[in-house]
Amino acid sequence: MVQQEHSEILRNRLRELVLAESLPAALELLEALHPADQADLIEHQDEFVQERLVRAFSADQLADVLEYLDEELRTRLLVELPAATIVPALDRVDEDVVADIVQDLPPEQAQRVVSLLEEREAVQELLAYPEESAGGRMSPEFVALRRNWTVDESIQFLRRQSPDAEQPFYLYVVDEAGLLTGVVSLRALITAAPETPIAAIMSEEALSVRTDEDQELAAERMRHYNLLALPVVDQAGRLRGVITADNVLDVQVEEATEDMFRMAGLAEEERLFRPIREAVPPRLAWLSLNLVTAFLAAATVNFFEGTIERVAALAVFMPMVAGMGGNAGIQTITLVVRSIALGEVDSRDAARVLRHEALIALIKGVVIGLLVGVAAWLWKDSPWLGLIVGLAMLANIANATLVGVLVPLALRRLRADPALASGVIVTTFSDVVGFLVFLGLAALLVSKLT
Amino acid sequence: MVQQEHSEILRNRLRELVLAESLPAALELLEALHPADQADLIEHQDEFVQERLVRAFSADQLADVLEYLDEELRTRLLVELPAATIVPALDRVDEDVVADIVQDLPPEQAQRVVSLLEEREAVQELLAYPEESAGGRMSPEFVALRRNWTVDESIQFLRRQSPDAEQPFYLYVVDEAGLLTGVVSLRALITAAPETPIAAIMSEEALSVRTDEDQELAAERMRHYNLLALPVVDQAGRLRGVITADNVLDVQVEEATEDMFRMAGLAEEERLFRPIREAVPPRLAWLSLNLVTAFLAAATVNFFEGTIERVAALAVFMPMVAGMGGNAGIQTITLVVRSIALGEVDSRDAARVLRHEALIALIKGVVIGLLVGVAAWLWKDSPWLGLIVGLAMLANIANATLVGVLVPLALRRLRADPALASGVIVTTFSDVVGFLVFLGLAALLVSKLT
Repeated sequence: MVQQEHSEILRNRLRELVLAESLPAALELLEALHPADQADLIEHQDEFVQERLVRAFSADQLADVLEYLDEELRTRLLVELPAATIVPALDRVDEDVVADIVQDLPPEQAQRVVSLLEEREAVQELLAYPEESAGGRMSPEFVALRRNWTVDESIQFLRRQSPDAEQPFYLYVVDEAGLLTGVVSLRALITAAPETPIAAIMSEEALSVRTDEDQELAAERMRHYNLLALPVVDQAGRLRGVITADNVLDVQVEEATEDMFRMAGLAEEERLFRPIREAVPPRLAWLSLNLVTAFLAAATVNFFEGTIERVAALAVFMPMVAGMGGNAGIQTITLVVRSIALGEVDSRDAARVLRHEALIALIKGVVIGLLVGVAAWLWKDSPWLGLIVGLAMLANIANATLVGVLVPLALRRLRADPALASGVIVTTFSDVVGFLVFLGLAALLVSKLT
Repeated sequence: MVQQEHSEILRNRLRELVLAESLPAALELLEALHPADQADLIEHQDEFVQERLVRAFSADQLADVLEYLDEELRTRLLVELPAATIVPALDRVDEDVVADIVQDLPPEQAQRVVSLLEEREAVQELLAYPEESAGGRMSPEFVALRRNWTVDESIQFLRRQSPDAEQPFYLYVVDEAGLLTGVVSLRALITAAPETPIAAIMSEEALSVRTDEDQELAAERMRHYNLLALPVVDQAGRLRGVITADNVLDVQVEEATEDMFRMAGLAEEERLFRPIREAVPPRLAWLSLNLVTAFLAAATVNFFEGTIERVAALAVFMPMVAGMGGNAGIQTITLVVRSIALGEVDSRDAARVLRHEALIALIKGVVIGLLVGVAAWLWKDSPWLGLIVGLAMLANIANATLVGVLVPLALRRLRADPALASGVIVTTFSDVVGFLVFLGLAALLVSKLT
């Protein structure tokens, strides 16, 4: 990343150059930067500037930047370009990146572009895997040594290969049928005696992931076992590609962002400065869903309108009972959703999680209930009001915690995303149950309150 | 990770063996697994079982597991062990992991342990760096080639080194003073002619990070530039260590977890099954803070108690106005907090972010305000009530969005953590302002409502 202070100056300078139609100077400014920083600068420009720049790029310049551009922006820019401009750039990019790019284009454009690529077969093979699978994320370029070679034969083989791949720090070993059988570090290879057989220096425990497994599983496995690369095999166990830790960094960051955004009802593609017409509909849809549940809560209050008319002080404590329940529930749900995402817990652990969180909820409920109850008593000079507020608080914190444990685990069991719906369900429960218990108790004891 | 189905069986089996005092069989069961999976199984046991197992470990077994154990659990277990048990295990672990482990021990125990280590000097050097700095995260084992060597000399040098380091897929090149001057891939080295000078095949653009810079910056840089490793240099530019992408995977996952937890008021060390005595105090502290702000909201409602007494229907819509404002604010704040964490935005962008989010807020406010206003009108058969609810909704969504943009950016400017305080501030504002506008309008127009 460019130093922030520099980047603001560069950002304005680039904009001025493009607006002044000084495109060669603008391109020169970009060329001096790492492609990742070029992409960054482009992302921070207005649409008009972005389009002018991309049209002015040579195939080389476009190829450099494509790998690093934000996906949504990349698609938006490429959709406007003819295949004759896109193809020469894509021919300079790694196949796995090409597959990612093509996947996001409209089907007809994608088909036309792929048919013109030099490496169309490799790209087509990658396109056959779902985008979020290990197969869709892997690079199909890898070095496979044969089990029965010697170190010397292996080094000769490496020397014959062109050293373009950024990869091999692990070398995978396959048998005659192409089945993955082990792994050798390049370092072990270089330091062993030339006549040593590969089988003697390889480790047979090659952890791998299948092409059809989720990229998250690949990421989680690399993190769990501290690996820099993971081989990807097909159903039969044949080596098909390699996923490296730098690619997985993105996966982990994207997944975390996705979870956070889903809990807040934002689309996973949401970004600051996303065009308004794309940003508004998903946010509105979420708010509308919340609105429906807010009406459920309102209907609960409405049921007790007569009681509130007699004891208006109840309205003062209503939001507190509901809100504190919600806060306690959000603590539990965040913990459970994150633990599910990190693979630390699943629905079979429900009873154990519930026991543990229930005990915490009891302590939280008693302490907060006591605090609020005493405060309400003193403030409104009514021990009965204090009792009702305190009990309702205890009940609602317990309720929200219960829901906070069970809802995400149930969603997980149903193969839905726990982050997606949990928040709104927990809030609805803590509102409805909070109002119900609080106002219900008040209605029962209304003679003590007036 | 072990397949979940297996792990539950293994988990129970391990527990039974330990409880039956069959420790050799328990250790044998563990030994058959990858150390990362051993750590996993141990993490899912009760404290008693964990302690029995760790006491029964040989130095080798303990060393294997230490790198993978959850930090808090690791510290808890080691605190109980004598230095004579810990030191032989630590002598088998990489220095950077040793430094991480020792850092978490009580000072006297840490000092005693370090003084007995074989590699105490290397560990002491690492301990001098803050835990979350690049220096604290780097591995001090690296291979540095000299600028003026040939390929053949370099390969001879590599052959003389023991091949224990899991690392070098990049080889860093230093000059006579030890200053980092370039980088060569091991692959380029192996495929070049023996007499080629290193300077001819190295890339001079070696991106790096300084020992005193934050580990997050290192992680962000590796993600931004798609790097598998990043050299770490001191103030003078001398190479001191290397950070690899697999270590950074943890950093990114931890940072994301931290942000999520902070937004929900959980401690960053929070885990499911954290002992109750440690889990409760931070959660209670957060709820108590929220309680103070809930009383602010309650005081606002209290101010209008007379109006609610006259128009109890207001209580029905109160939670809706406050809650929907909160939901809209949470959308904005989540987006801004995450964008700050990913380095995509900072306080200088405030005006631009505000303009963009304000427009979205206006659309959200008008749509939701209209929906709610019309619904309230029809439900309660009062156009004035509908008007008041709708206007208050529009005002509160605008208010929560404004706060949602400004609070995290301001906290960032003040070098505080935007995730930490933003949520509670936004909720307080959306509650207080929501009640104030809604009940204030109702009080002004109370004659139209009765």
